[in-house]
Amino acid sequence: MRFTFSILFAFLFSASFSQQKISGFFTPNVSKQLEAEKQFDGYLNAKDQDTWLKFLSARPHHVGSAQGKANAEYMANLFRQWGYETELATYNVLFPTPKFRQLELLGPNPYKAKLQETALKEDRTSGQLSEQLPTYNAFSADGDVTAELVFVNWGVPADYEVLDKMGISVKGKIVIAKYGGSWRGIKPKVAAEHGAIGCLIYSDPHEDGYFQGDVYPVGSYRPEQSVQRGSVMDMPVYPGDPTTPFVGSTPDAKRLKREEITTIMKIPVLPISYEDALPLLKSLKGPVVPEAWRGSLPITYHAGPSETKVHLKLEFNWDFKPIYNVIAKLKGSEFPDQWVIRGNHHDGWVNGASDPLSGMVAEMDEARAIGELAKKGMVPKRTVVFCAWDGEEPSLLGSTEWVEDHAEELKKKAVMYLNSDGNSRGFIGFGGSHALEKYVNEVANDVIDPQTGVSVSERRYARALASADASSISRLYGNRYMKISALGAGSDYSPFFQHLGIPSGNVGFGGEGSGGEYHSIYDSYDHFIRFKDPGLQYGVALAKTAGRMMLRMANADVLPFDYSILTNTINGYFSEIKSLIENSRSSVEMQNKLIADKVFELAADPKEKMKLPVAKPTVPFLDFSSVENALAQLRKTTDALKNAVSKADKLDAETLSSLNQILYQAEQKLLDEKGLPRRPWYRHQIYAPGYYTGYGVKTLPGLREGIEENNWTETKERIEVLSKTLLKFDSVLQEGLSILQK
Amino acid sequence: MRFTFSILFAFLFSASFSQQKISGFFTPNVSKQLEAEKQFDGYLNAKDQDTWLKFLSARPHHVGSAQGKANAEYMANLFRQWGYETELATYNVLFPTPKFRQLELLGPNPYKAKLQETALKEDRTSGQLSEQLPTYNAFSADGDVTAELVFVNWGVPADYEVLDKMGISVKGKIVIAKYGGSWRGIKPKVAAEHGAIGCLIYSDPHEDGYFQGDVYPVGSYRPEQSVQRGSVMDMPVYPGDPTTPFVGSTPDAKRLKREEITTIMKIPVLPISYEDALPLLKSLKGPVVPEAWRGSLPITYHAGPSETKVHLKLEFNWDFKPIYNVIAKLKGSEFPDQWVIRGNHHDGWVNGASDPLSGMVAEMDEARAIGELAKKGMVPKRTVVFCAWDGEEPSLLGSTEWVEDHAEELKKKAVMYLNSDGNSRGFIGFGGSHALEKYVNEVANDVIDPQTGVSVSERRYARALASADASSISRLYGNRYMKISALGAGSDYSPFFQHLGIPSGNVGFGGEGSGGEYHSIYDSYDHFIRFKDPGLQYGVALAKTAGRMMLRMANADVLPFDYSILTNTINGYFSEIKSLIENSRSSVEMQNKLIADKVFELAADPKEKMKLPVAKPTVPFLDFSSVENALAQLRKTTDALKNAVSKADKLDAETLSSLNQILYQAEQKLLDEKGLPRRPWYRHQIYAPGYYTGYGVKTLPGLREGIEENNWTETKERIEVLSKTLLKFDSVLQEGLSILQK
Repeated sequence: MRFTFSILFAFLFSASFSQQKISGFFTPNVSKQLEAEKQFDGYLNAKDQDTWLKFLSARPHHVGSAQGKANAEYMANLFRQWGYETELATYNVLFPTPKFRQLELLGPNPYKAKLQETALKEDRTSGQLSEQLPTYNAFSADGDVTAELVFVNWGVPADYEVLDKMGISVKGKIVIAKYGGSWRGIKPKVAAEHGAIGCLIYSDPHEDGYFQGDVYPVGSYRPEQSVQRGSVMDMPVYPGDPTTPFVGSTPDAKRLKREEITTIMKIPVLPISYEDALPLLKSLKGPVVPEAWRGSLPITYHAGPSETKVHLKLEFNWDFKPIYNVIAKLKGSEFPDQWVIRGNHHDGWVNGASDPLSGMVAEMDEARAIGELAKKGMVPKRTVVFCAWDGEEPSLLGSTEWVEDHAEELKKKAVMYLNSDGNSRGFIGFGGSHALEKYVNEVANDVIDPQTGVSVSERRYARALASADASSISRLYGNRYMKISALGAGSDYSPFFQHLGIPSGNVGFGGEGSGGEYHSIYDSYDHFIRFKDPGLQYGVALAKTAGRMMLRMANADVLPFDYSILTNTINGYFSEIKSLIENSRSSVEMQNKLIADKVFELAADPKEKMKLPVAKPTVPFLDFSSVENALAQLRKTTDALKNAVSKADKLDAETLSSLNQILYQAEQKLLDEKGLPRRPWYRHQIYAPGYYTGYGVKTLPGLREGIEENNWTETKERIEVLSKTLLKFDSVLQEGLSILQK
Repeated sequence: MRFTFSILFAFLFSASFSQQKISGFFTPNVSKQLEAEKQFDGYLNAKDQDTWLKFLSARPHHVGSAQGKANAEYMANLFRQWGYETELATYNVLFPTPKFRQLELLGPNPYKAKLQETALKEDRTSGQLSEQLPTYNAFSADGDVTAELVFVNWGVPADYEVLDKMGISVKGKIVIAKYGGSWRGIKPKVAAEHGAIGCLIYSDPHEDGYFQGDVYPVGSYRPEQSVQRGSVMDMPVYPGDPTTPFVGSTPDAKRLKREEITTIMKIPVLPISYEDALPLLKSLKGPVVPEAWRGSLPITYHAGPSETKVHLKLEFNWDFKPIYNVIAKLKGSEFPDQWVIRGNHHDGWVNGASDPLSGMVAEMDEARAIGELAKKGMVPKRTVVFCAWDGEEPSLLGSTEWVEDHAEELKKKAVMYLNSDGNSRGFIGFGGSHALEKYVNEVANDVIDPQTGVSVSERRYARALASADASSISRLYGNRYMKISALGAGSDYSPFFQHLGIPSGNVGFGGEGSGGEYHSIYDSYDHFIRFKDPGLQYGVALAKTAGRMMLRMANADVLPFDYSILTNTINGYFSEIKSLIENSRSSVEMQNKLIADKVFELAADPKEKMKLPVAKPTVPFLDFSSVENALAQLRKTTDALKNAVSKADKLDAETLSSLNQILYQAEQKLLDEKGLPRRPWYRHQIYAPGYYTGYGVKTLPGLREGIEENNWTETKERIEVLSKTLLKFDSVLQEGLSILQK
């Protein structure tokens, strides 16, 4: 009986295999690919991920640490065991660490900040004090400043408009900003632009502490003395070693002197705990801040200035440190010069179990399983490259220097870069090139969620519905398609994607692991295994997901880039831009009418003495027709290309090779060689990190930021650049189309 | 030169008088009325208001206090001096006061609640401990209960649905609810319905403490040991003396025994400070509550139950106390049997400077000025009645007993009841019968705001625009018309309006005086004069506003009720009701689909173990045609009536008298003699306090509450009652129309 059933099941299984379609695979090759994926899943092992996670997080492993180097070597050895040609790609990079830190409130009720996180008996690695990096912001300026304190909310430009209305200037002051609302590096940058001489950044318990849930070690959330470390380098200008923009930090690289570097903060910056922030915030006088600015400390939040002064003194060791990227390659059986690249960083601010190691161990599991497939003769057609980056935390050091160092080779060979950066229990998330959207959806349909037994796609859909509001639920119902998000900055895809135009993605699970450990000494194995992904079930789910993505991209006949989806997406962004300018125009007009009618004057509380708004220049009408024409052309080409690809179920090797090269290099045409205004390193014309938001993506960044900053001359220039870029992109896709129409 | 200018100015002024129209006045009578109003304004005096405020708030003056009686006599004497026929209308009413109060957290970290507000040297009356009512909720049950504690957010029905999903029951528990989100009496009522045996209500600093601003005495906001007193009688069933529903508490009234009364809370209830709440909330275990439930205490808010038990013991003196209403009449020169009534209460929970005296002193100023006009021969045509109510705080005792006692006379004579209940710096607000809307707008156009020099209407418009969001600003721009709000319960208009159907309004200024003193010992003269209305400028503005309303209603030729506006408004409410049922139907359908698709099961975090929603019965389609037909008929009648009234610029006295009687009694036809389901005392079919919201108004309450509670049989019955009521109302207005068409 058992035997008979097995045969029946094998039959049914292969029958279902043969019915399935996978983008990029000719019909005869689908079942082989599905069989490879099935075997791949069989090699994944949560216990091994757990062993690696425990080893790699055993000691602090930041840039330049002994454990950081040991971890790189440990991983390199494993990759070699799994059959990969593996190297440690090493660069010397600028990495400042604290030499002296002092923060005190002066005056009659003085307070000396502790600036120290507490070892906990419930967390076995939290007491490794001698190896821990102190709490600090990397790439702060040295400084010794004494001044009144002003509270600036998140510290983004809009907050300074509010302060201005209240008649409060930060000129010559030290500002204190909450973490959140933007990438942290924006806060001191904007503060310095407004004349501040120092900047403190604290974790308010509202976003990151007891308001969210019980604090560690009772629950997972940030306790009162815990501090979020992190970089404040001006990465929206360029990431990587600040002494070598555009080129790898090789021994012979020409380096900028420290004083020539524009991306190091101009003022001293220090992150502090909410315990240390409380006496400082209590010392603030002046008006009560708007409700949206207030946090969860048991005080009335005032804007300041403080009655008494604050003294902040910071000195750093401005040393060059070696970084160790692990680069492991498995040569492709058919197209060895087409590289499918996977990466996650391995450096942490301290023990870094969640960030980054939980993603790293999934990637290792994928590499091991693909190695095992290869040993059984199922070598991927294209070369797969597994990378473990060092120095991501300070400023994407490892990935950026490696990409800059190998730029020419990558432009020729890189098919895709797939990133992860940590992982936890929950729901699939994916951001990246929209040409990947269909392929991502297909993979998400084929991976089973470990908690519910349905596909990770189905579970994501269920959550979107269950949390939808009444107004959007009908639109969402029945629509299982996952719209992927656009990528700003924030992890190692940035140099591949926004500097070189290599189709890229960032994948991970999340939403159910509870937080609070971010960039602190509590991002430990003990914390992770209690709160983030007990048993590493989602480590395995990530490996299944990213592994399928790697295998499908490596084995595809025609590479599964669907540029008609990218065109749709760009059209959507362009509609947003047009609405943005129209809304901006009507809101300026209305605001100016209200000002002329004295509405704000009459509505104001005379006791509050707020500054009244002043009239703004009207928003001009712009000629968008060149972009509209280019998009119309692109729509035709990408629809035709999609149609032609869908009809091709057999092509000779030569045609495939030239077609695929066009497909994977096409997105490089979306770059403008001169880059974006004020930041030439960022070349992609569709996606960029926001100049004033950091992590937050700006799509069609040239236009969007021009409009947001009311810079009409620049916006007009960017319209021309965008339309030309789109036409360049169109013409390379037309080449692809002509190959298929031959 | 000066003389010439004066003549010119006088000419221009009287010219502008003669051009103005006032609803209800025949053209020849307008300038006389405007002249009376101008003289009226001249008699108003902020200094006198200040003197009265200081006297009346000098000592605690709650029901039964020596100062309460003294205040009534003081006011009665003044009214007499001003020429009013004045009486003290006295009733004996049930008024429980605390005999014993104890609250403690048991267990290893016990805490004994202080239950005591602190005297402050900065507040001169805060130390009158021996005369202050202790902190308590009037009409709580006696009780001695010990049980675990559960946190129920606001304690409204929706909160118990959330607790149920978390698997938490309050059966046999003591609940702790935050003040806010509903009238306080709803909290213990709903808690008892769910099986709780005790209820604590605390002021969270998020809504009422340091989150809002600096606490008293630095700023105005509630300090940590301050408590909001207040009634928890089930007033949405009926207000007034609970022993005498429907009738005045006269010596010969038949009284219910205490055990027969349904409106006294079934469980012990105690209000506490956030200082006393903190250790109790800290003791809670169980799940972390949803974000919207969390306050601003420096803790993680859990639902409970608590690890250790809480002991609550309360005993009250269930005494009858005399209340003293001041009723001052000035007989009308032409229509002495048509009464225009003005009221504000005079009892406070403690010193009550803001609540209620700031409104009371404005009313006194109005009465004095009208008395002065009368002495000069400008006696109002109709009788004006100025009332100072006692016992509003415990349950609208004074007004309700007086109205019930004089119901027959009031139904015949009462033209309008105009209420206020405190006042502060800021913007005009008005709620009430929508037939008054046009008349209210005209008055608001004619009163000048003391801070800006424009009309209070213009200033309100400026604020509405300045605080509007982008989506509504175009709709608001240029629209200076003030839509008045509907009245629920919460002050002394309730018996006039919702029990008898007398056209009523509630007027006051606010929005710029900062709060935090509500129902505490800090509602003092010292607090008021610093934070609410320094110099009583807005006391004078209120007197100008309410005084004009009194004078115009008392002197009008044709009473300025515009029933076409009321019809519009009812139509709007009816559209809301239809949307409500349609939205409810589609949301139940969608929810049931999601349940059938296992969406909630798949979306749930398996670690959280939340209960899944269950399918609900579908919402039926109802026959609304009888209401639609009645409204169509009413639209015709009210439009014709409006048209006929606008054309009448001269009518003989007899026609006027019978027309006016129809106009002011018409709204009585909007009552249903049987009242609303489960609360026959509330008879108005358009406006009622919500059975589960308290202060919050429910318009078309029969339909709305039937639908909200999915009670379709009752909703159908209420459709019939509403359509019949509307037709009754229509036919009396038709009578009015026929008088004009004669």
